[in-house]
Amino acid sequence: MKSSRLSRFVPILAWGRSYDRQLLSADLLAALIVTIMLIPQSLAYALLAGLPPEMGLYASILPIVLYAIFGTSRALAVGPVAVVSLMTAAAVGQVAEAGTAGYAIAAITLAGMSGAILVLMGVFRLGFLANFLSHPVIAGFITASGVLIATSQLKHLLGVAAHGHTLPEMLQSLVAHLDEVNWLTFVLGGAATLFLFWVRKGMKPFLMRLGVGAALAGNLTKAGPVLAVVVTTALVAGLGLQAHGVKIVGEVPQSLPPFTLPSLNITLLGDLLAPAILISVIGFVESISVAQTLAAKKRQRIDPDQELIGLGAANLGATFTGGFPVTGGFSRSVVNFDAGAETPAAGAFTAIGLAIAALFLTPLIFFLPKATLAATIIVAVLSLVDFSILKSAWSYSKADFTAVAATILLTLGMGVEVGVSAGVILSIALFLYKTSRPHIAEIGLVKDTEHFRNILRHDVETHPHFLAIRIDGSLYFANARFLEDYLFARLVKDDSIRDVVINGIAINEIDFSALESLEAINTRLKDMDIRLHLSEMKGPVTDRLKRSHFLDDLTGQLFLTHYQAHCHLRNLPTS
Amino acid sequence: MKSSRLSRFVPILAWGRSYDRQLLSADLLAALIVTIMLIPQSLAYALLAGLPPEMGLYASILPIVLYAIFGTSRALAVGPVAVVSLMTAAAVGQVAEAGTAGYAIAAITLAGMSGAILVLMGVFRLGFLANFLSHPVIAGFITASGVLIATSQLKHLLGVAAHGHTLPEMLQSLVAHLDEVNWLTFVLGGAATLFLFWVRKGMKPFLMRLGVGAALAGNLTKAGPVLAVVVTTALVAGLGLQAHGVKIVGEVPQSLPPFTLPSLNITLLGDLLAPAILISVIGFVESISVAQTLAAKKRQRIDPDQELIGLGAANLGATFTGGFPVTGGFSRSVVNFDAGAETPAAGAFTAIGLAIAALFLTPLIFFLPKATLAATIIVAVLSLVDFSILKSAWSYSKADFTAVAATILLTLGMGVEVGVSAGVILSIALFLYKTSRPHIAEIGLVKDTEHFRNILRHDVETHPHFLAIRIDGSLYFANARFLEDYLFARLVKDDSIRDVVINGIAINEIDFSALESLEAINTRLKDMDIRLHLSEMKGPVTDRLKRSHFLDDLTGQLFLTHYQAHCHLRNLPTS
Repeated sequence: MKSSRLSRFVPILAWGRSYDRQLLSADLLAALIVTIMLIPQSLAYALLAGLPPEMGLYASILPIVLYAIFGTSRALAVGPVAVVSLMTAAAVGQVAEAGTAGYAIAAITLAGMSGAILVLMGVFRLGFLANFLSHPVIAGFITASGVLIATSQLKHLLGVAAHGHTLPEMLQSLVAHLDEVNWLTFVLGGAATLFLFWVRKGMKPFLMRLGVGAALAGNLTKAGPVLAVVVTTALVAGLGLQAHGVKIVGEVPQSLPPFTLPSLNITLLGDLLAPAILISVIGFVESISVAQTLAAKKRQRIDPDQELIGLGAANLGATFTGGFPVTGGFSRSVVNFDAGAETPAAGAFTAIGLAIAALFLTPLIFFLPKATLAATIIVAVLSLVDFSILKSAWSYSKADFTAVAATILLTLGMGVEVGVSAGVILSIALFLYKTSRPHIAEIGLVKDTEHFRNILRHDVETHPHFLAIRIDGSLYFANARFLEDYLFARLVKDDSIRDVVINGIAINEIDFSALESLEAINTRLKDMDIRLHLSEMKGPVTDRLKRSHFLDDLTGQLFLTHYQAHCHLRNLPTS
Repeated sequence: MKSSRLSRFVPILAWGRSYDRQLLSADLLAALIVTIMLIPQSLAYALLAGLPPEMGLYASILPIVLYAIFGTSRALAVGPVAVVSLMTAAAVGQVAEAGTAGYAIAAITLAGMSGAILVLMGVFRLGFLANFLSHPVIAGFITASGVLIATSQLKHLLGVAAHGHTLPEMLQSLVAHLDEVNWLTFVLGGAATLFLFWVRKGMKPFLMRLGVGAALAGNLTKAGPVLAVVVTTALVAGLGLQAHGVKIVGEVPQSLPPFTLPSLNITLLGDLLAPAILISVIGFVESISVAQTLAAKKRQRIDPDQELIGLGAANLGATFTGGFPVTGGFSRSVVNFDAGAETPAAGAFTAIGLAIAALFLTPLIFFLPKATLAATIIVAVLSLVDFSILKSAWSYSKADFTAVAATILLTLGMGVEVGVSAGVILSIALFLYKTSRPHIAEIGLVKDTEHFRNILRHDVETHPHFLAIRIDGSLYFANARFLEDYLFARLVKDDSIRDVVINGIAINEIDFSALESLEAINTRLKDMDIRLHLSEMKGPVTDRLKRSHFLDDLTGQLFLTHYQAHCHLRNLPTS
């Protein structure tokens, strides 16, 4: 009993018990493939975040291990990801100059804050807050971020010194520096980009046509970025291209992740708080959707609150070992899953592989051109860009379209923080606006049934002396007056009505403001000699009404079913 | 046709046409009574706002006339009111020192901004936004404001120089100055306060016991504050009490309202924008609820958007004639109504009365002690204080109680602006939280009917091979995952289920995020060999679903009534 409670918070205790050789070999193979893929990706995302390349490796080692201990997903691979790296660059760029020690410390601190926020959210079971990021807002945000990230890397492909955190800033800066383009860099980077696109789309079919088996061809494809790294590095080293202005990664320390501490400077913490919250929530949403997608395929269960703790531990790991904010990445997790990772131990083996790389392989990337890393990023993020969400949202609902369009435009035009915040606020505002004017249907009896439907949509039976309406929405403060206005505008048109029945089957709540409004309606109807009845009020709503005087003062009755109300009122003399 | 359209925007054209002598005499009498009541009240609210007393008179002249032209309520009396004057003091106190010319200009500017905001809200028909101030938040805010206002006037009763905008600040400052109490002021002010309380509670019955008719007794009661003003002024003048430290009103200019202009200083406008919005909305809510209460008694109609324009015009009038923010006041409107005002012309006659006062009566109030004005304010606002809202909200709904308690505590502890903003945000957050976890009922057939109810509350018929659930809430982004979690947690417990029916009678909307979630549910159920059916989906929801692929991919059927689904599934072989 005690151990099962403990294993809820430390899931490793559950799967660790039954670990055997078969699981081990599956996990080892997956780890090898993921490691090969992660080396260039980690370096590239550090570059995207404006940090030294080794920080990308450091951010992938301890965080993976801690997630393996505390996380619930069996396939999720944690580390730097594109969108979070972009958000890190935007946040840290506001408080420090890129390339300074202060910049790296701010990024480390941001990971620590993000970790603390995630753990707190997990402990207080606030995972549901992530649901307020609606699907259109997330889709729009990811697409716009993909565009921003790809654009931000163009400067490395062109070998110029542009900057900016929004699309107009970046484009303007690129245009201003167009006369400084380094053509050697451009040829090298352009070739790497084209090659990586081909790896993604054409390499696997090509290998299979050459007779390579599908599984091996798939795994070789994952080594494509490493091939690009090796070839371009060899070209630069062999031809001395760095002397002709091709920017290279240069010296990278040969070491295990160092022990680092976040800054405790109050001003810095204050400046980073809002971005840290956004990064935590966005990182969590991205990670949980990947984890749930993969878990569904194997009928495993993801506990969102435990995921918060797993990701929080990973980020705290990053802050103490020279990393920056991390989360569960889509592409690496899918690769891990496809490669057959069975348990989180695969992640631990990946961490060992990356630690070996950090210790022994860094001298080999001295001549690695930054343009190759930029090409890796561009090809990776363009798969995130998907404007089709605009079309599907438009055809389904104009409100959802508005939210997605605003999120895309504001993210591109004003940066990631404004974009995602505005998207969330706008979705909530649109929801409140819709609920502030609920649909109200006048209903009648469907022939030969006991069922009542909208008189405008169905062929139904009504009666001139009574009005039956179904209110399609909870009654709460924002629409309390709306019902009153609707009802009296309707009654003015028709003075034969003697009874009004409100069908409550779709009223999910009546709050205190709406109760006051119902009391006012009851009194006003009484003055007009019209009785007010209620039918099909649901249990929780009736319970609450009983705690007020409303049901005592009601001029009419409370009917269990609308059909009973209908029969009762039809048999009455209609005066 | 054209004139009736014009009269919609300028309501005076509608009632002005049928104005006759009978209406005139009713309006004149009402105006006389209101004028007598308004003179001390206007002076007092100027004092409360930290402004020279004559500004209270100015703010009651042109605004009344403009409201009479543009407003729709026949009894509303516009002018300075307690809560708005307190908010004005809080807002202007942040940008200027009380007693300086800058302070008065800021107050005049605030009226102009408030007027512009109200007119814009009216033109864009944004009156519904006021509904987001829930009843508990308004009630809590008004009660807390009453306490703040009464406390703020204690310094005038004690004759000390205390300050502060929150209850702790005021009390601390009062205690710190207790050694400076002017006992003469305290006796005078205390006596005036007791007298005014007696006027309110005991004077009318007392006069009636003396044989005075009820109507005359009521009207004489309204002159009580004037009597207090006359007696205390005479005492100070006759005994020279001002030489003993009793603070008096002093010289007040003898003039019609001056022509003034709001400041166009950008910094000032920026600083005042948030308070101006709050003052506009609070003023509008206070005014519209008074107007609707009075209109309901005479079966007249209030157009909220036109009211915005009427109040906006009144505030623009205040800004150009040396006034400060105004709105429809509760007490003066009720007096106006009770005194028999038939048309807005009563307001215009009141304006003439106050103009005469401003021109000729100001020398008479030179010796008026400020303590008397403070007594007027204290007695007026204590009638606003009503903590019983806490009790009734508690017994009805804990969420509403939380909103009202937070609004009261934050208004008292952190000031009016924080209090009301926090109340609004908290009400919205609580509503979103509730809708993010909708009530879901498992339903069965009520015997001998075609009606389905919650299996936990009613004696109903169910079947082991199918699960029918009614979701009591719209499906939208904040609860999209909640349904998925609920459903699969339920299905894990019971593997005999082959069909799931979602009853949609209480689902008022399905947004794009929820659609994605339903698609995921359909796919997951299909993998488990369970069919998903929908029943009683409402028209607008079905229309929207038809615009997506969901209904095509649905493994089960869409039934018009739940009873049809029930019969159909009961007749199927249950494999």
